[in-house]
Amino acid sequence: MNEHHLEASLIYAHTHTDAFIEHYKELLRIPSIGADPAYRDDVRRAAEWIVAEMQRLGIENAQVLDTQGQPAVYGDWLHAGADAPTALLYAHYDVQPVDPLDLWVTPPFEPEIRDGRLFARGAIDDKSGVFVHLKAFESIMAANGALPINIKFIFEGEEESGSPTMEPFIEAHKELLAADVAVISDGGSSDETPRMMASVRGIVTAEVKVPGPVRDLHSGSFGGVVHNPTHMVGKIISALHDDEGRIRIPGFYDDVVPVSEAQQALIKENEEDAIAKGHEETGLETFWGVPGFTYYERATAQPTCDVNGISGGYQGKGAKTVLPAEASFKVSMRLVDNQDPNDIAEKFTAFVNNFACDTLKIDVNILSSSWSAETLVSGPIAQAVIDAYAATWGKTPKMERAGGSVPIIGMLQHVLDIPVTSMGLGHGTNVHSPNEYYDLAYFGPNVDTAIHFLFNMAK
Amino acid sequence: MNEHHLEASLIYAHTHTDAFIEHYKELLRIPSIGADPAYRDDVRRAAEWIVAEMQRLGIENAQVLDTQGQPAVYGDWLHAGADAPTALLYAHYDVQPVDPLDLWVTPPFEPEIRDGRLFARGAIDDKSGVFVHLKAFESIMAANGALPINIKFIFEGEEESGSPTMEPFIEAHKELLAADVAVISDGGSSDETPRMMASVRGIVTAEVKVPGPVRDLHSGSFGGVVHNPTHMVGKIISALHDDEGRIRIPGFYDDVVPVSEAQQALIKENEEDAIAKGHEETGLETFWGVPGFTYYERATAQPTCDVNGISGGYQGKGAKTVLPAEASFKVSMRLVDNQDPNDIAEKFTAFVNNFACDTLKIDVNILSSSWSAETLVSGPIAQAVIDAYAATWGKTPKMERAGGSVPIIGMLQHVLDIPVTSMGLGHGTNVHSPNEYYDLAYFGPNVDTAIHFLFNMAK
Repeated sequence: MNEHHLEASLIYAHTHTDAFIEHYKELLRIPSIGADPAYRDDVRRAAEWIVAEMQRLGIENAQVLDTQGQPAVYGDWLHAGADAPTALLYAHYDVQPVDPLDLWVTPPFEPEIRDGRLFARGAIDDKSGVFVHLKAFESIMAANGALPINIKFIFEGEEESGSPTMEPFIEAHKELLAADVAVISDGGSSDETPRMMASVRGIVTAEVKVPGPVRDLHSGSFGGVVHNPTHMVGKIISALHDDEGRIRIPGFYDDVVPVSEAQQALIKENEEDAIAKGHEETGLETFWGVPGFTYYERATAQPTCDVNGISGGYQGKGAKTVLPAEASFKVSMRLVDNQDPNDIAEKFTAFVNNFACDTLKIDVNILSSSWSAETLVSGPIAQAVIDAYAATWGKTPKMERAGGSVPIIGMLQHVLDIPVTSMGLGHGTNVHSPNEYYDLAYFGPNVDTAIHFLFNMAK
Repeated sequence: MNEHHLEASLIYAHTHTDAFIEHYKELLRIPSIGADPAYRDDVRRAAEWIVAEMQRLGIENAQVLDTQGQPAVYGDWLHAGADAPTALLYAHYDVQPVDPLDLWVTPPFEPEIRDGRLFARGAIDDKSGVFVHLKAFESIMAANGALPINIKFIFEGEEESGSPTMEPFIEAHKELLAADVAVISDGGSSDETPRMMASVRGIVTAEVKVPGPVRDLHSGSFGGVVHNPTHMVGKIISALHDDEGRIRIPGFYDDVVPVSEAQQALIKENEEDAIAKGHEETGLETFWGVPGFTYYERATAQPTCDVNGISGGYQGKGAKTVLPAEASFKVSMRLVDNQDPNDIAEKFTAFVNNFACDTLKIDVNILSSSWSAETLVSGPIAQAVIDAYAATWGKTPKMERAGGSVPIIGMLQHVLDIPVTSMGLGHGTNVHSPNEYYDLAYFGPNVDTAIHFLFNMAK
């Protein structure tokens, strides 16, 4: 397929943009809040809507695939020939909860366009990834009757819940999902420069409980003779880091390796912006961290261990002189490179359990874990994305390393053993907040981006 | 005055017991919950009821004395002569809150007698101290027209709130309250053996806050670059004790001296009972504490530093990967001997503030403080109490050291510079709980005890 086929696809897309947007509202009306059991039926309804749309467009093997959690949607078109590459296009159709509801100008599941912005929960994150890919497919097929490469779609229903059951699901469907590259289309930019995610950190979350006496005791009667669970929590938390912030869990850094040159260049490039953004978002004048690393290295290329919450005893106003019956804390560890989340979970558990003694026992519960991942930032596949954006937005995308974790990326990378690239197809803001919106000036260009990408991949 | 005067007083008391109990209900009907601002008027009404009753009985200088908090009640009778001793009789007329109200069989301020028990909030703690002293006065005066010794009454209205404004009040009324001994009549026994409080520990309570970023941050975006306030809380708590439980605040033990031989004997005597009670109340098999001390020494004769509560970040179910905007903890330190609560408060504050750094500041707020106290356990005054109980209950009282704190005792002892003895005039249980009651079989004997005490003091 050649430039003429591309051109014909873009013309189809451009002449149908308004119809696409109207159609998009249908999907946005389904309240597919995956994390809330009350919306279970709606989540499935969204999955079925997508399957029906796939079938209408001629996508093959379109089906709802059950997981142990929320259903996934699969479909493929594999007629570009054995020599053509196969891309696995990933997005998620579940959306964030909508609280606080009273801050929404219009209801989150009644899409409305105001000032060229389409307001709805999920308009960006991440029904945009699902819908724009489908419309790119529709445009190319309508214009040419065939695609330049083979594609598989995998749309997830539990990304906003941390993809708790996706790893076994991917394991179980390794062959079905086999591809040359996975393309993560999740979210998008909020300014005039497209963004590509260059890396994410892995994560292990855990909860540690230290049970003590049967009930809160009078600190006068039992202070000095009963081991106080809050003291144990303090002792464990204090032992997690040395005075300079290095994590003291034995073996924690064993699998941390220096970042690649390409990623190192990215770190340098983003350093200044990241610090400015950091000051703005935290209200802090002084940052913290392990000596020998820059801000952006610490935030994206070094592992962390942060206590997310501490709890125990009396927390109300004034004094209440109890010796608490229990104390607990929650922790999230961000992982990098080759740090295996299961290995880190075991090391953390052993480290904490080591504090147990005659007078206090300790319960450690691992809540979730996922791998870190580095996505492609150079080479032909990354270039296919970069060129697609350049052609449609008129801008080279900015590569950003994320300090946060997107479990699905590491899962696809590790289980399928394929490279991953990132190509968000949304544009707007208020993701995870009230009044999420898609800036419609970018809707057409994003369909174009998805079309260009498939043609670029065929080169 | 002699045995005949005593006998006549007891006869008056015995022939009026039923009338006394009926009269007691009047005082019990006033909901003088000192800690709850909603009951402010009732607290004053109770104080005024007592003053009116004092005036009716011929107690002189009866008056409500304002404090910076709840009013106190004063009255005296000082006509026993310059050679006779003067006793300051202390009790408190404020009562504990009544929650949970639905567990009360009859309303807490509608006194009712069932099975020989008088149910009402404050029936024991501590309107009994107020009322029984007044009835002892009435009995002696009615029978003899004079008392064997000089007495001053001081009835407090904020004991259940920790006596927050009593120290300056006592300072301001040093002369008015001057006496040879203060008699603390607060509470009483719940079995057939009378109890005398031999010591209480002092206390300093404090709250430590560690403010961090302006809001909870994403632990992925800011883990590694923002100093986590919960880590600081862990570090401070961990530093409070060494591995064997000794408190590491510099100078904390400076004013701790070995307990007296008399108190040491008490400790030995109570050791076994205290341990048995400890197992029962805590549900724990193994106790904890600084090596080199027994259980009862640790619980009553050694100072402590217990964290009462820790708070910060996400405390709900599951994981939420925040880096908390603030973390805090509350602490109560129990003091012994010559430990000056103001000195300890300063040492604690300095110790904690020392953890402040470029990336986290620390706010320490001292909430309350009071002196420890040892009450008389031997000598003529203690003997006057012991003999009074022996004559009326037929039992020698058991001396108990309290691990808890009763601020008013140390205040009276330190500000007035007089010895203190303890003579509870209640009998019953559910103090601080629903269905508090006075076992009326002991009501008459307790009036007798108060009468005997005054005669014993004259010997």
